[in-house]
Amino acid sequence: MKLQRFAVTNPMSNFIRQIPEGDDRERLMCPDCGHVAYENPKVVVGSVIAEGDHILLCRRAIEPRAGFWTIPAGYMELGETVEEGAAREAWEEARVRITLDGVLAVYSIARIGQVQVIFRARFAEPGFAAGPESLEVASFHWSEIPWDELAFPSVHWALKAWRETAHGALPAAVLNPAEDRRGVHRLPVAG
Amino acid sequence: MKLQRFAVTNPMSNFIRQIPEGDDRERLMCPDCGHVAYENPKVVVGSVIAEGDHILLCRRAIEPRAGFWTIPAGYMELGETVEEGAAREAWEEARVRITLDGVLAVYSIARIGQVQVIFRARFAEPGFAAGPESLEVASFHWSEIPWDELAFPSVHWALKAWRETAHGALPAAVLNPAEDRRGVHRLPVAG
Repeated sequence: MKLQRFAVTNPMSNFIRQIPEGDDRERLMCPDCGHVAYENPKVVVGSVIAEGDHILLCRRAIEPRAGFWTIPAGYMELGETVEEGAAREAWEEARVRITLDGVLAVYSIARIGQVQVIFRARFAEPGFAAGPESLEVASFHWSEIPWDELAFPSVHWALKAWRETAHGALPAAVLNPAEDRRGVHRLPVAG
Repeated sequence: MKLQRFAVTNPMSNFIRQIPEGDDRERLMCPDCGHVAYENPKVVVGSVIAEGDHILLCRRAIEPRAGFWTIPAGYMELGETVEEGAAREAWEEARVRITLDGVLAVYSIARIGQVQVIFRARFAEPGFAAGPESLEVASFHWSEIPWDELAFPSVHWALKAWRETAHGALPAAVLNPAEDRRGVHRLPVAG
């Protein structure tokens, strides 16, 4: 996932910009094979994982913002749901198994073409540890959060959103309905 | 946008699958130039647009599911926020100007690699008409919605979610904070 942000600027690529037939704007195309590399916003999935007033943060081992603190989050992969992606990232970056409460926030980072879906989560099992993309993982009391050493504005936003909703209900209707939790059915169910 | 789903299966492409250096899973790569075409879930943005108990639906002019009814929705583009994308799609497909109430739903369609961010919206100005991707656009009373002619399961889900929340408040904290509505600032603001 850390390679992802280089996809469009790969120095080996000789892709050109032109408008494909039937489209209405320029796209990145391979002049040799005709492949259209659509550049769409990418989805980042993450979670604010709390136990009481303590929140789990990871100190990044990789750029961008290596050495700064973040919530466990990363690029969603094909074939998974947003919930599955958030749980996978929590495991990869912080070796923690989580239970999701619900969607805490949906952020647009227009500058870099990201949509972030952030969950509010709790520990499903005790324990955490640094994964390969983290220098360390720690549980901070709200009063000890290193605000000046957060990696991204959206980490700041998500922590503040957590603080506002920490003890309240999150909307239940926001995610897939029970009859198709993963979005695998092709046709509508009559209703 | 209608071309998007062909990106990976373009018959002109000779891309191959291999694991890029430093990655942990197979990606689609051009053997000639080394370009890595990351295949990530794509974001669909849309809205349930209502006036009283009437809801705006579009009959699709294009595949998939041409002839079936949908809410205005489509692939998000780079450089826009989810809110801007939903408003753009409402204009492109239904020639309607909308005001967003908030996020109604976040759906994962794992089968086809989509994340759908669906808003609840109202008319900002009177009037609507079929855009180029719609055969017709119509306002349906809730009791007249053509349930058996909806294009996708998620249209069904979104309409039901709308019905459940139509007269209630939507969560305010879910979208970008006021200090950075579009996600254009690079560094965290101390807080």
